[in-house]
Amino acid sequence: MNSKLSAPPVPESLHSPMQHVRVVLSHTSHPGNIGAAARAMKTMGFSRLVLVNPKILPEAQAVAMACGADDLLANAQICTSLAEALSGTVLAMAMTARRRELATEPLWARAGAAELAGVARHDEVALVFGNETAGLSNEELAQCARWALIPANPDYSSLNLAAAVQLMCYELRLAMLGVAPAPVVAGAGTPATHDEVDGLIAHLEASAITSGFLDPERPGRLMLRLRRLFARAGIEKEEVNILRGLLASFERPTGRQHRG
Amino acid sequence: MNSKLSAPPVPESLHSPMQHVRVVLSHTSHPGNIGAAARAMKTMGFSRLVLVNPKILPEAQAVAMACGADDLLANAQICTSLAEALSGTVLAMAMTARRRELATEPLWARAGAAELAGVARHDEVALVFGNETAGLSNEELAQCARWALIPANPDYSSLNLAAAVQLMCYELRLAMLGVAPAPVVAGAGTPATHDEVDGLIAHLEASAITSGFLDPERPGRLMLRLRRLFARAGIEKEEVNILRGLLASFERPTGRQHRG
Repeated sequence: MNSKLSAPPVPESLHSPMQHVRVVLSHTSHPGNIGAAARAMKTMGFSRLVLVNPKILPEAQAVAMACGADDLLANAQICTSLAEALSGTVLAMAMTARRRELATEPLWARAGAAELAGVARHDEVALVFGNETAGLSNEELAQCARWALIPANPDYSSLNLAAAVQLMCYELRLAMLGVAPAPVVAGAGTPATHDEVDGLIAHLEASAITSGFLDPERPGRLMLRLRRLFARAGIEKEEVNILRGLLASFERPTGRQHRG
Repeated sequence: MNSKLSAPPVPESLHSPMQHVRVVLSHTSHPGNIGAAARAMKTMGFSRLVLVNPKILPEAQAVAMACGADDLLANAQICTSLAEALSGTVLAMAMTARRRELATEPLWARAGAAELAGVARHDEVALVFGNETAGLSNEELAQCARWALIPANPDYSSLNLAAAVQLMCYELRLAMLGVAPAPVVAGAGTPATHDEVDGLIAHLEASAITSGFLDPERPGRLMLRLRRLFARAGIEKEEVNILRGLLASFERPTGRQHRG
């Protein structure tokens, strides 16, 4: 993470709302998907993984796909029913990709994350993902107060399970941390002072006149344009020096291959 | 799709800005990641995949991971340099996960997507992802006018390549479908294409060698710095022409006071 970016300013551990979130994977078929989901969760600062009747318990392939998030696998809670997995939660949000019976009002992912983040400030919540192929059963869906959808390409909406976990955890992270502060660029080189930019412009102007490119009688907007270019870039002190060095080299008789 | 959800109301094919987006994967090591990235792109409605020197060309494993997005693999453009991959673009955004030298202002993923979406309304843009382990080289980064970061857990920011593609394509999709059009800067000039900037850099380099300012045996980071300066500024076509005209004037015998 770039140290020039000031967010997130607070250690993850202090964001206790993140500890109120459990990610529930129900009837997952492929251990690799469990591992990849664990990795996705951890990249967004979530750690509580709950597995409902995984077809195969996490093993080598899951650990391989977890890629450093195997602590989440080791600490995963294994349940035999969604009801057990949701015990203690006050809001469960089901992720679903298709039209379902018994429809309650579905939310887009971002709105769903905002609602979860609000509740998670004080209470336990769950994000619930179904089997890779069949999704959640109607019985499972009925246990979730909210359904959320990722706004995907209607012609190809088949997100990988871990990709859906990644997106929802990302939205939830942003909803919990608030809009990240704008990245700060400190130390990316020292900005040139106004006088230094003036010096560069004057040097360029003199060189352009000497070379015949600029007619001092009819200067037009040339120098204005160049000034604007450097202003847009936020030109740095060192860059001014480079350009002036380059200009100086053009003023010397050509043909020399090394600096004098 | 539940009828209570109103978006996206328009068929994908009418969203031509999506066709202005190319996703560039540079020096990807694992074909499976290319396939998974293709799937991630397609779920969000993007189709133009460009591969720069993939370690292994997409094959069976990539197709398996693409999972129905193999049309993107079949149509992928294979390039031998990032410059070739970016030909014709006016904005390239590099995804980076760590502290880099020569930093320009980095953006968070969401802000980056908003900027790309604005430009993609009329012009070609690229989202650029580096190698799974090493990321993008400094030389590659210098060719990208913007850098974006996914706000991840600082203690574990290791997103899988396809997961990063998924998140950025999701943000870009929402920015394109959902948000008010980006403000248009009236009277701003036409941005230079990547090729035009390349031409300017090559011209500057040749002049600097001729003048003796740059030792071709020991080029150091000079050209990289100048490239970054122009990238930060979002240099325009006309400005490229001005600078090249100025350079050409320096190459002629000095002492003339007016254009020939």
